[in-house]
Amino acid sequence: MRDLARLIADLGDVAVVTDPAKVQLKSRDFYWYSPVLKRQLEQVCADLVVEARGEAEVVRTLRACYRHDVPVTVRGGGSGNYGQAMPLEGGVVLDLSRMDGIVDVGLGRVRAQAGARLFRIDQACQAHSQQELRFHPSTSRMGTVGGFVAGGSSGVGSITHGALRDRGNILGARVVTMEEEPRVLELRGDAIQQVNHAYGTNGVITEVEMPLAPAYPWIDLMVGFSEFMDAVRFSDALARQDGLVKKPISPLAAPIPELYFRPLRSRIPPGSNVVLLMIAEPWLELFHDFLRSWPGTVLLERAASDPKRKALPIFELSWNHTTLHALRIDPRVTYLQVLYPPPAQVELIERMHRKFGEEVMIHAEFVRFDGQIACFGLPIVRFLSENRLDAIIEFHEENGCPIFNPHAFTLEEGGMKQVDHTHLAFKREADPQGLLNPGKMIGWDNPDYDGMSRQSYLYKSLEGFR
Amino acid sequence: MRDLARLIADLGDVAVVTDPAKVQLKSRDFYWYSPVLKRQLEQVCADLVVEARGEAEVVRTLRACYRHDVPVTVRGGGSGNYGQAMPLEGGVVLDLSRMDGIVDVGLGRVRAQAGARLFRIDQACQAHSQQELRFHPSTSRMGTVGGFVAGGSSGVGSITHGALRDRGNILGARVVTMEEEPRVLELRGDAIQQVNHAYGTNGVITEVEMPLAPAYPWIDLMVGFSEFMDAVRFSDALARQDGLVKKPISPLAAPIPELYFRPLRSRIPPGSNVVLLMIAEPWLELFHDFLRSWPGTVLLERAASDPKRKALPIFELSWNHTTLHALRIDPRVTYLQVLYPPPAQVELIERMHRKFGEEVMIHAEFVRFDGQIACFGLPIVRFLSENRLDAIIEFHEENGCPIFNPHAFTLEEGGMKQVDHTHLAFKREADPQGLLNPGKMIGWDNPDYDGMSRQSYLYKSLEGFR
Repeated sequence: MRDLARLIADLGDVAVVTDPAKVQLKSRDFYWYSPVLKRQLEQVCADLVVEARGEAEVVRTLRACYRHDVPVTVRGGGSGNYGQAMPLEGGVVLDLSRMDGIVDVGLGRVRAQAGARLFRIDQACQAHSQQELRFHPSTSRMGTVGGFVAGGSSGVGSITHGALRDRGNILGARVVTMEEEPRVLELRGDAIQQVNHAYGTNGVITEVEMPLAPAYPWIDLMVGFSEFMDAVRFSDALARQDGLVKKPISPLAAPIPELYFRPLRSRIPPGSNVVLLMIAEPWLELFHDFLRSWPGTVLLERAASDPKRKALPIFELSWNHTTLHALRIDPRVTYLQVLYPPPAQVELIERMHRKFGEEVMIHAEFVRFDGQIACFGLPIVRFLSENRLDAIIEFHEENGCPIFNPHAFTLEEGGMKQVDHTHLAFKREADPQGLLNPGKMIGWDNPDYDGMSRQSYLYKSLEGFR
Repeated sequence: MRDLARLIADLGDVAVVTDPAKVQLKSRDFYWYSPVLKRQLEQVCADLVVEARGEAEVVRTLRACYRHDVPVTVRGGGSGNYGQAMPLEGGVVLDLSRMDGIVDVGLGRVRAQAGARLFRIDQACQAHSQQELRFHPSTSRMGTVGGFVAGGSSGVGSITHGALRDRGNILGARVVTMEEEPRVLELRGDAIQQVNHAYGTNGVITEVEMPLAPAYPWIDLMVGFSEFMDAVRFSDALARQDGLVKKPISPLAAPIPELYFRPLRSRIPPGSNVVLLMIAEPWLELFHDFLRSWPGTVLLERAASDPKRKALPIFELSWNHTTLHALRIDPRVTYLQVLYPPPAQVELIERMHRKFGEEVMIHAEFVRFDGQIACFGLPIVRFLSENRLDAIIEFHEENGCPIFNPHAFTLEEGGMKQVDHTHLAFKREADPQGLLNPGKMIGWDNPDYDGMSRQSYLYKSLEGFR
């Protein structure tokens, strides 16, 4: 048995939450996006929550938890949707959302505490020098920068700058180790990859340094097309316009917009396929000239941030928010994560669209990927059965479109289906007892894991919820 | 006979230069880069030079020249190297270099008079808001923004933003027409393409609005490789690093650096192939991590603009400056302009390198081109004979590498070898008498011109210099 009383005593004046309702709330993220994760993780709950107010309290917490052999799962805004912040073995949820300071802003970079929300960082950088983060998830209002680095990958702006894993999209990370006497490390350069997208399994990120881009006045746009493939070809061509500043480029097949985009329903004619866009104001007239040669109709055009109006930003219909809007209207749908690999993305989307029609309603996001235009997919799937879902996944993979499983909570299954040896080696050094976010890194429990075997993996403590 | 006395009288207090030495000087650009142009254009000279101090004087000059049927050739810094500012039929050279005001700077854009030198615009935008032009030719110190729009195409920074012809790389242009009563037009959006890279044949650009990028502190780098193809593969891989901010990426085959880069000779070991680079300071340490996996050695690394030192900026060894340094040392060499089309650029460069060795010393420039990484070449050629040069060109074209002839002064021959009907239609409207820069647009004299016929074209007034 864990001696929580002695742990709490060791924590001294560090803020501890033990109220069961609050602890349960802070033990959850948006895992319920997936019906599979909802079933598997519903019972997951921490023993207590620690609300750290600074790096010294993080160090104190990790030292105490190490001494008492209590696992620690770090949490930011809790807007992840793969259960990455959920404490599979209970123990402590370490909530960093009070560590939300902006440390420093310079030309091209910002340094912030891990718990700073992404939109707050943007506001601070705009006020300082008309800059903003290069890209962000659609959960910018809720998500923290530490959570984004620990559990995100790409987002609104990736059409220009690529993904977090691309060199230069994270400049530095300050990390506390889980040892008898925790160390505070500043990881820079390629060393950052040791903790990037590791779900906090191998160190607690307390501060990050991120690159910035110019904060132009952005225009939100929604363009309607009667043919979905016209919307996709338009998106692909726009993605190639190196001179136009834009983010995101999100084509969505009918009937996604009319069924699920309640806030904009009056603007969406029945049968519309749409492309969601943001264009920087200096390039807006050239965008309209570009649009002229396509069979698209502007359904919405407005300043992205009009302080007098509280309209939904267009990016809150894109990326993972598309699925959220669908789930709100129809909890029976589910989704997948696909890569339509370059340079055949348009052809592959067409093949999937023809094959599945409205059963797999395509939602794509154009990004830059290894210096090329590429396309991720987050299709909304009308869920019929697990067998049928498997058949859909199989058809994608047979046609060269890898699926990143959004119905799995481990790093490996949701990612490249293989052990990340950089993450694993760093965990051996920084978390020798395996106390950080246990169960999320298969490679720690089974270094010989081979995800290509198609055997699904389930962490041992969750066997009962399979 | 032209009645120049009456023309001068009509010009009133507009500044006119008639001193023959000065007129000859202002009738020339860097045409002598090409031995062919040197032979063809050596005798070209204006009758007089007008130094306009503002748009009203441009209008007055064009009105007077129209009345007296005198051709007008516009000139900025005179740093073009295809004779684009040389008055084939004499008449007036209209020098706009006194019209050098910065009209307005905003977030993402600058408006300047046509005669403003590119580096002066950068200085003003840096002082205003840490911004700079997206890309510039290597002649940034001498070239004007109007000359760049009228006669340039891409340059230092095109690896991120593409070329001038890409939508969004010119935001607006103010143009005076050559009519009985000249009109002043503001061209915006796609209408800008009517005068972009038209050598001033169809209107006089008096003001332009250009997009801006952040002005990071840049680091100049020269990286040495013992194998040229390693330098090329490194360059191609770096070009694909979407998260690293860089400009230019210029691989140069040995013995270009050791033979021709006199200012850096002490840093260049014999046999070095080099890559010239600029990396924005916030991404420098990540660049070094990237370099670690390549067999490259840093031969030079220093701040691009140390105000205390007057060192040559690295970009003044790249693009057309490479050829300039070679010609200074060995006037017998010449050069070509090649496109190594994507996605096979690395393989095509290797094929050319193996075929010709040191006879065609490869100098490449990585750029973004239609949303893809692509590669231009400006190889230095050891000139043996015109037949041999033709054979070299033929081998390139047979292998799918188009040559943009730098030994031609017409828009068509130096470009796509076909009439640009957008340029031509605008000339019919804006210069109905064909008085602007006569002889540079083949399509005006012969709308049926077909450059694919491989028949070389020579403007009629120059027959004697063939």
